[in-house]
Amino acid sequence: MLMKASAQSLTEQLAARFAERIRDRLLAPGARLPSVRQCAELQGVSPSTVVAAYDQLLAQGLVEARKNRGFFVREAVPVRAEGSAESAGASGEAIPAGWSTAHWLAARRSQAPVNATALIRGMFHKISNKPQPGMGVFPPDWLESTFMPAAVRKVTSTKALHDFSLQYGEPMGDSGLRRSLVTKLAALNVPATMDQIITSVGATHALDIVSRTLLRPGDPVMVEEPGWAVEFARLNALGMRLLPVPRRADGPDLEVMAQYCALHRPKLYVSVSVFHNPTSYCLSPGSAHRILQLANQYDFHIVEDDTYSHIAPPHASRLSALDGLQRTIYVSGFAKILAPNWRIGFLAAPPALVEQFLDTKLLATLTTPALLEKALALCIDQGQLRRHSERIRTRLDVARSRSVKLALNAGCRFEAEPAGLFGWVDTGVDTDALSQRMLDEGYLLAPGALFHAEHRPSTLMRINFATTQDAVFWKKYAEVVRRM
Amino acid sequence: MLMKASAQSLTEQLAARFAERIRDRLLAPGARLPSVRQCAELQGVSPSTVVAAYDQLLAQGLVEARKNRGFFVREAVPVRAEGSAESAGASGEAIPAGWSTAHWLAARRSQAPVNATALIRGMFHKISNKPQPGMGVFPPDWLESTFMPAAVRKVTSTKALHDFSLQYGEPMGDSGLRRSLVTKLAALNVPATMDQIITSVGATHALDIVSRTLLRPGDPVMVEEPGWAVEFARLNALGMRLLPVPRRADGPDLEVMAQYCALHRPKLYVSVSVFHNPTSYCLSPGSAHRILQLANQYDFHIVEDDTYSHIAPPHASRLSALDGLQRTIYVSGFAKILAPNWRIGFLAAPPALVEQFLDTKLLATLTTPALLEKALALCIDQGQLRRHSERIRTRLDVARSRSVKLALNAGCRFEAEPAGLFGWVDTGVDTDALSQRMLDEGYLLAPGALFHAEHRPSTLMRINFATTQDAVFWKKYAEVVRRM
Repeated sequence: MLMKASAQSLTEQLAARFAERIRDRLLAPGARLPSVRQCAELQGVSPSTVVAAYDQLLAQGLVEARKNRGFFVREAVPVRAEGSAESAGASGEAIPAGWSTAHWLAARRSQAPVNATALIRGMFHKISNKPQPGMGVFPPDWLESTFMPAAVRKVTSTKALHDFSLQYGEPMGDSGLRRSLVTKLAALNVPATMDQIITSVGATHALDIVSRTLLRPGDPVMVEEPGWAVEFARLNALGMRLLPVPRRADGPDLEVMAQYCALHRPKLYVSVSVFHNPTSYCLSPGSAHRILQLANQYDFHIVEDDTYSHIAPPHASRLSALDGLQRTIYVSGFAKILAPNWRIGFLAAPPALVEQFLDTKLLATLTTPALLEKALALCIDQGQLRRHSERIRTRLDVARSRSVKLALNAGCRFEAEPAGLFGWVDTGVDTDALSQRMLDEGYLLAPGALFHAEHRPSTLMRINFATTQDAVFWKKYAEVVRRM
Repeated sequence: MLMKASAQSLTEQLAARFAERIRDRLLAPGARLPSVRQCAELQGVSPSTVVAAYDQLLAQGLVEARKNRGFFVREAVPVRAEGSAESAGASGEAIPAGWSTAHWLAARRSQAPVNATALIRGMFHKISNKPQPGMGVFPPDWLESTFMPAAVRKVTSTKALHDFSLQYGEPMGDSGLRRSLVTKLAALNVPATMDQIITSVGATHALDIVSRTLLRPGDPVMVEEPGWAVEFARLNALGMRLLPVPRRADGPDLEVMAQYCALHRPKLYVSVSVFHNPTSYCLSPGSAHRILQLANQYDFHIVEDDTYSHIAPPHASRLSALDGLQRTIYVSGFAKILAPNWRIGFLAAPPALVEQFLDTKLLATLTTPALLEKALALCIDQGQLRRHSERIRTRLDVARSRSVKLALNAGCRFEAEPAGLFGWVDTGVDTDALSQRMLDEGYLLAPGALFHAEHRPSTLMRINFATTQDAVFWKKYAEVVRRM
């Protein structure tokens, strides 16, 4: 809300708001600002205030005016910190031989991944004190526990701390934790030995290790669409060619997948089998079997991102279980259930790939911090993580049924059967525009475009059932949708 | 030492020893095993025992026999874990358009960086209980302190732990730590604001973020030769073209550098200005100035790895200080001085590059663990790290003069004036062969070949002054050299 009583003028406040949003990439490079009339109406200010604010943004180099078309966010936005006049652009840069110009430009652009970082930064950047429907995680108060601090205290006695702090530690990760993970994976029918498990800085790092090791720039990679924006952005930044496979309720569209295989010989398929993000779909056993047949026939690897395993139904189908880690690499982490900031993830790999993955980990970060890995092992071994997960699941079930009711009342239609942490809903309006309006109200949404490799505009959005139990949000949402 | 009284036969013991060394890459792919006669003599066993042991290695697929030339370590060694018959090889893989075959092969091979990992794995793998001359770090007992556990306890009270554990945390790293680093850098005349500093999983990760952001496969990069093997291996794994610039006592060979600039237009120069690894050379102010002139003229960036800053002389010349972080990126960490396993490093970047580096960090690992960053900030702010560093420096001075005397007595010649943590010494014999012999005695050396981009054989080796005060080592060393 712009405030007349503020020390800043309305113009300055409005310009500052847009500037912040552009810098946080909540307004993407290339995006059009609302027209002067629209903006004046939305913000309750005079058109001349908007014109003055847009002029300030022009002067700051954040937007550009296009004749008869309005104002657009510039592609290369100057950074926050002052100083150097040096440009972040790629002037004079040669396109590597063998790369198409379009591919190179896409790779360059994705170095500054536009829409994905909006969501990533939203994960870190406090938009307001309100519960955030676009977030991908549980609210912090859901994750509070007494066992976690107790575990940390146990592993940080002076002697224990010296024992593991003063040396680099085990390249593959703390062996106690890897031992606990063997048991945890066995319960999911994923047969891994300690020697197949490598710890990482969150599941993100594990996925990064896999892509860096198995792929080279230009390699074709099958991804699910809709799918997780950060994964698209990372693969883009590595210069990969994304082959989006439509994700259905029971798994990927197998016909499309088979066509890609025959035409492009992809190296890798990146998949979330259980509680797929953003749809919460779960893979069927039949689809899993057919995917593995294709993988064998066309000789590609699969990385199965099981980030949501902690809240998954007991008998969910996993490719890694069916395949026995022959061509699949299993990846998971604990950010969603225990402590996002501990940054602990891991991968379980086919024996023949372990050494290569380990080399990539060593070259990128050497080892990972043992303190938190040891504390996590305690939480697993003492059964606390399991009980904690059960409590969260129960709480989520209640939240989900509340949220679903509110969403339906607000006029949303569920594109996918509500399950897991995320709802995939059709709003009937363009969710990119909706997101900008809701940001004005202090709410971060996750618009459908984020989950498409090509960032297609969409009327869909992802909601987090844990943060959409709030009737106040849905009231505001319905109001804004009505006005669109 | 092979033991007759062991439950294993001498053949099995000998085969097991070679197998372990091959798997740990202490015997590199392509390396030749000693002749049967040589090996029998060295190990004090009969030639038939050696023949039987080599046969076992053949059967295990670890070595291959080449007609009339002997036994060689195979290029693609089967991995430790049993199971899958799948090969780690790159069969059927296409060479990306625009890559030369040689370059591609080099990049592929370096995916499993042969000699660098020997040293890296040596950092983690306990060869024996003896002090290890090849190690790149202080012995753990040098790093013991009371302030470090105290700092950890302070930041892990239940409330504090919940406050930062249950959310992802700050993308750029803990702001308290970044504030402390601003002051620390200011003392080195490196002018950085908090907004220019990004924390990482050790200095290694910071260097990785820089290379991934600024470079594309095939880009020419200037490195120092001799130089740090892990840096070569990482750049190779990323597919870069290394341009080795000879490192002299006062800095890089500027004529070679100027020629590279004119011919290849390198994108980046990777440099250790102060206490260069392995020579401990320090950059002169004149060289620093000239390097920056070249960087301006030919428009390349510089990443200055200041890993040894904590033990550096007070007025050492740094490119980042002279340049004011315009084209230089400053990288350092705390593994060498405080707690290797805390894995905390950071970079300080020109304002125009900060956002790109941050994107790379987010896509690769999201955030880094705040617990240890907060504990480190306490250690810095309370002056404990500074006093600890002074104590280590004093202790190192004593160790260095002892080690130098012992080395000279053992017939070594110092190629570089002894300083810092490392000595760069000429042994007069091939240090690759010497390393294998000394491994038999339980000592890991760092042979000269490791520090050359092309792994040229060399009579030089790097010693760690903190771990070569041991007269027993030098006695064994002199004995082995005499027999070569």
